[in-house]
Amino acid sequence: MTHVKEEPVRQRLLAEATRLFAERGFEGTSVQEVVAAAGVTKGAMYHYFDSKDDLLHEIYARVLRMQMDRLTQIADGPGTVKERLHRAAADVVETTTANLDDSKIFFRSMHLLAPETQKTVRAERRRYHERFRDLVAEGQRTGVFSDGVPAELVVDYFFGSVHHLGTWFHADGPLNGAQVGKHFADLLLASLGAGDAGE
Amino acid sequence: MTHVKEEPVRQRLLAEATRLFAERGFEGTSVQEVVAAAGVTKGAMYHYFDSKDDLLHEIYARVLRMQMDRLTQIADGPGTVKERLHRAAADVVETTTANLDDSKIFFRSMHLLAPETQKTVRAERRRYHERFRDLVAEGQRTGVFSDGVPAELVVDYFFGSVHHLGTWFHADGPLNGAQVGKHFADLLLASLGAGDAGE
Repeated sequence: MTHVKEEPVRQRLLAEATRLFAERGFEGTSVQEVVAAAGVTKGAMYHYFDSKDDLLHEIYARVLRMQMDRLTQIADGPGTVKERLHRAAADVVETTTANLDDSKIFFRSMHLLAPETQKTVRAERRRYHERFRDLVAEGQRTGVFSDGVPAELVVDYFFGSVHHLGTWFHADGPLNGAQVGKHFADLLLASLGAGDAGE
Repeated sequence: MTHVKEEPVRQRLLAEATRLFAERGFEGTSVQEVVAAAGVTKGAMYHYFDSKDDLLHEIYARVLRMQMDRLTQIADGPGTVKERLHRAAADVVETTTANLDDSKIFFRSMHLLAPETQKTVRAERRRYHERFRDLVAEGQRTGVFSDGVPAELVVDYFFGSVHHLGTWFHADGPLNGAQVGKHFADLLLASLGAGDAGE
């Protein structure tokens, strides 16, 4: 019961922190401003988050957890490796555009986090990339994809494009997240010599 | 004569600013620290740069100018459109890895620049992207490349990967800049249905 009542405070803190970090930068926002905007006390905030670093970390971590869940479901789900990779690629583009502020803020300020926190995030992201890389490698091993470029580098290439969405994608632009996702997934599959996968 | 003597001061200021922005962040570095590290007076610095913003801008702008020169030379040079696009793609990866600190620092702190300066940089980069896009469009128009994905989006996709090099590329890693450049150019060409271009 208490927990059900408390959850919204946590959500509100994350939402207000995201908005303030986006508007004024992580460096230019104080914990005091976050708690004031969320309408809670500092004590309430420290019940959920250890620090401002922790808030920034969690803004990105919750997106990453959601994406990891979806990737696992897609990768372990039905379909050929072409279909699963296309689905996974399109999905991560779409969920990134749907949570664009979160990743934008994070990538912009990640270097300001304590080294330990940076290490944790890198490890979390590495797990995601490894699962994605395994899909590419599965297709290369079975001869469905070209193995001219190491799977690891294919993943770096693709996620560069994903992480960079924050610099140009706009919700009111000519293409929505699903359309960009389809195009990016098509490009990825074609670059692996599997151009007809998403059709 | 005076100019010949003065140029090194400008170079030194940019070099020290790059180093300090990389170590302490743009926000965490003062103009005073930059001039002290470069061994010049504030007056000397303001002879070359209007502000700390201007230093950050110039760190990136000089890389961009060099890349624009090379792109123009490659795009207007000899060879098929496949060969020229492959060459241009590999080149921008290689020059980016060779100047990695510069772009890393810039992308990390660009949002802290004055809106006018951000606008200038975006315009400079847009010109670069447009020239690159023209190469993709040339190949699509002549039927050499697939036109399934709009040329503009292909460029956003590719440059996401280029801009993201700063987060994972290391000069002492398993692949050097030229090798990553060849792989990325191969992936780009293959994604356009032109897999044999770089061979």
